[in-house]
Amino acid sequence: MFESAELGHKIKKSVYEKEIPALRVALLEAQGEVLQLAEFPVIIIVGGLDGSGRGATVNLLNEWMDPRHIETHGMGEPSDEELDRPMMWRFWRALPPKGKIGIFLGSWYTWPVLNRVSGITKDADLDQSLERAKRLEKMLVDEGALLIKLWLHLSREQQEKRLKALEKNPATRWKVTQRDWKRYKAYDAFRAAHETVIRHTSTAEAPWMIIEGEDDNYRNLTVANIVLKAIQARLEHGKGQTPKMIAPPLMPPLDNLHLLKTLNMDQALEKAAFRKKLEKYQARLGLLMRHPKFKYMSVIAVFEGNDAAGKGGSIRRITRAIDARSYKVIPIAAPTEEERAQPYLWRFWRHLPRKGRICIFDRSWYGRVLVERVEGFCSPADWMRAYSEINDFEAQMVRHNLLVVKYWLAISQDEQLRRFEEREKTCFKRFKITEEDWRNREKWEDYVQAVCDMVDRTSTSAAPWIMVEANNKYFARIKVLKTLCDQIEQKLKQLEASGIDYLDKPQKRRALSL
Amino acid sequence: MFESAELGHKIKKSVYEKEIPALRVALLEAQGEVLQLAEFPVIIIVGGLDGSGRGATVNLLNEWMDPRHIETHGMGEPSDEELDRPMMWRFWRALPPKGKIGIFLGSWYTWPVLNRVSGITKDADLDQSLERAKRLEKMLVDEGALLIKLWLHLSREQQEKRLKALEKNPATRWKVTQRDWKRYKAYDAFRAAHETVIRHTSTAEAPWMIIEGEDDNYRNLTVANIVLKAIQARLEHGKGQTPKMIAPPLMPPLDNLHLLKTLNMDQALEKAAFRKKLEKYQARLGLLMRHPKFKYMSVIAVFEGNDAAGKGGSIRRITRAIDARSYKVIPIAAPTEEERAQPYLWRFWRHLPRKGRICIFDRSWYGRVLVERVEGFCSPADWMRAYSEINDFEAQMVRHNLLVVKYWLAISQDEQLRRFEEREKTCFKRFKITEEDWRNREKWEDYVQAVCDMVDRTSTSAAPWIMVEANNKYFARIKVLKTLCDQIEQKLKQLEASGIDYLDKPQKRRALSL
Repeated sequence: MFESAELGHKIKKSVYEKEIPALRVALLEAQGEVLQLAEFPVIIIVGGLDGSGRGATVNLLNEWMDPRHIETHGMGEPSDEELDRPMMWRFWRALPPKGKIGIFLGSWYTWPVLNRVSGITKDADLDQSLERAKRLEKMLVDEGALLIKLWLHLSREQQEKRLKALEKNPATRWKVTQRDWKRYKAYDAFRAAHETVIRHTSTAEAPWMIIEGEDDNYRNLTVANIVLKAIQARLEHGKGQTPKMIAPPLMPPLDNLHLLKTLNMDQALEKAAFRKKLEKYQARLGLLMRHPKFKYMSVIAVFEGNDAAGKGGSIRRITRAIDARSYKVIPIAAPTEEERAQPYLWRFWRHLPRKGRICIFDRSWYGRVLVERVEGFCSPADWMRAYSEINDFEAQMVRHNLLVVKYWLAISQDEQLRRFEEREKTCFKRFKITEEDWRNREKWEDYVQAVCDMVDRTSTSAAPWIMVEANNKYFARIKVLKTLCDQIEQKLKQLEASGIDYLDKPQKRRALSL
Repeated sequence: MFESAELGHKIKKSVYEKEIPALRVALLEAQGEVLQLAEFPVIIIVGGLDGSGRGATVNLLNEWMDPRHIETHGMGEPSDEELDRPMMWRFWRALPPKGKIGIFLGSWYTWPVLNRVSGITKDADLDQSLERAKRLEKMLVDEGALLIKLWLHLSREQQEKRLKALEKNPATRWKVTQRDWKRYKAYDAFRAAHETVIRHTSTAEAPWMIIEGEDDNYRNLTVANIVLKAIQARLEHGKGQTPKMIAPPLMPPLDNLHLLKTLNMDQALEKAAFRKKLEKYQARLGLLMRHPKFKYMSVIAVFEGNDAAGKGGSIRRITRAIDARSYKVIPIAAPTEEERAQPYLWRFWRHLPRKGRICIFDRSWYGRVLVERVEGFCSPADWMRAYSEINDFEAQMVRHNLLVVKYWLAISQDEQLRRFEEREKTCFKRFKITEEDWRNREKWEDYVQAVCDMVDRTSTSAAPWIMVEANNKYFARIKVLKTLCDQIEQKLKQLEASGIDYLDKPQKRRALSL
């Protein structure tokens, strides 16, 4: 979820200062139009970690726009008046009217998260609070509100660094309290709760926008741009007709630093070393599958990646290690007629393996947010909702002890060209390269954004994406095999610890409501 | 929730047999069009109590339509194959393709309810299962499916009667098993779980249709009509354009027996008896409000009713009994400019009382599903979603120890005419009667349906509607006062038992995530 917000995004001061004037004019104009139209309110929620610059960013928004038509709400400790009413009362009384902008620094997410982290509530309580939040937001959107949800994130190291930096500076020292350090110590618990928040409540109509909070320039510029683009998109579509739901559009990082760029593609392995490791991990995989607890789990390995990234080769290195009766490889191409007559996840559900089996998908349900998005085969509303549908889908598998291992095989543009040309020269590989591959290559940048959004919105702790640097085939194949073994082993240990036994009747029955 | 499905609906055999031929032709035609168009599947879920005639009705649908294009799924005990996969797999594999009709006798609701009733899971588990069901259904609807959710209901007495009747008849004896009787004993637990199901998962896009299951003719005819109308509405709107979500339309009961008709309007009270009782209950109310636990709760009394039903008079009999500092009366008329600039529930949220207070709404948030629906001030999609928004709203109050007491003051058409004429004659009452009142009177039947749908969809065990027969003012006022006292007393007992004390800090914090 937070992958792209831990890359160390930065905007140079000179660039920042050059961008500001035009941005401020555009923001003021957009705000003016919202005010004049008075057809919908703008509700901005700013969530995230302590020290991630939430306050500073909100102050800037007030500075850059007309603060007379912005209401900013801190939402700290509730008053007695507020405690006397249902929790949402304080938010209802603070909602901006049509034409105005309301910024919430604390929101309906704040206390459910704090209560969960401090152990006052349990996972199920948090889930329920989040469902309520989602229902509230659906109502707001149905009533015409533009809802912009910003999440400012920091990695653990970044948070420590930020808090220390704030403390060191006499001008900002007051901002850091004992409470901040106490919360920093609970970083992992917060991160887990935050992931739950984002996974549950990032909807097609009101997706979370996750922004790295470390660099002030990057953060401010990104937030201001998201707000601007969201308002502009809403104005564009709302004009003259019944207010229509338009989600804030996703946009590429302003500093053009994306997840894929941070991969070290030069990692390589010699052929001899590869052979040795291959033997080792294939043996390990075979052994793991004969583990007595393996019959209570199953494995779904998903292979996605650039064209010619070596998915097929990696898959064969797995299948060679295991009994043909215990795996299936499902190559995903265009859907069949029967599949087109069903909801789009249907073609994947039908292939879910039984316990004790491995199912390998060569391309997968992620096609919806990759090729279908880039080629325009489905509408933005469709691929936007696909993120949460996919998360739901995978969460069901995970709850049922299906291990979901997702690989993105990444190669550089140059390496892809080399492989394409080689394929065209080699007669027995020529079938592998088509016109379509060349066409896809022209949309490289679109795919980059689609991949980064995909990872950001579907990499969960229960089913994380594994990025595989695949310029060197040997390196890639070993990384795939090794991580697969690691994850199966981890799952087996978990099963051993939980003492699971699906032959047990109450267990079976309970599973029917999962 | 089940009010209208316990009235003893009946359709005479002669009427039934007259209706059937045309209905069958229409059903076949509609099915044919769905098949030919092949643009969306029809998914029919049939839930409800044992003995409510689910099986018989489904058999009839198969008989009346072309069974080659209907797939009926029993979904009883899961197979080993199914147990090996996530719970939803069995439903995914059974989904009908576009153009076909799939009928599910057991559904994604069956096991979550059974597990809850048998104590294998808890309330929070059931809630989570229901949220998952809702997400699945949202996906199905987003993908274009027409989802028709039928709930066959029986009162406890009706269930017993049905089971006994089935047992008595040698031809149907096999249908009744030990399990049915065991489940009958858990009637209340099932009913509570069923209410939770319906409250959580009745959405604007896929509302539950609750049908009384006792009379075969009524049940069959109603189910067939709902299916027919839903398909017709969907075909109408879907033609030639992107499939658009159209919920099955609500319709009045086929035998024209509605909730309001079952009220005994002749109940009356003599003036002398009224005076005595008035004194008694006013004293009791005053006493209850001085109860030491009253400061931990608050009361919201909602008054809705026909024009001239005597809301004002009933309200005054309450307020006279209590300290003016502890209550507020909020008369709801057309929204102010400020209120129109906010989501529609905003104007009600702002008036929620503090602890220890009473707030009386003279008309309320139910305007959305009454006058706004009948007058067409908002679209069907808006008032359809209002039912669940209102249920959410009231559930928040209830969780926060706000007691919600809702009164529908009902008078007959004749009585209303008498009062209107009297008002016009009496000079100091003349201001009470306007052109609008006469206009509303012309829409009597529309209001009847709106009121019945409102009660069916928003009467929950936590905040039930109280129907007040108000032809006799004395009787009505006493019924209002007495039930108010009873409900406050019950709530106070509950608070005493739970030992609640909101000055307690962890309690306070926990409340922030409710």
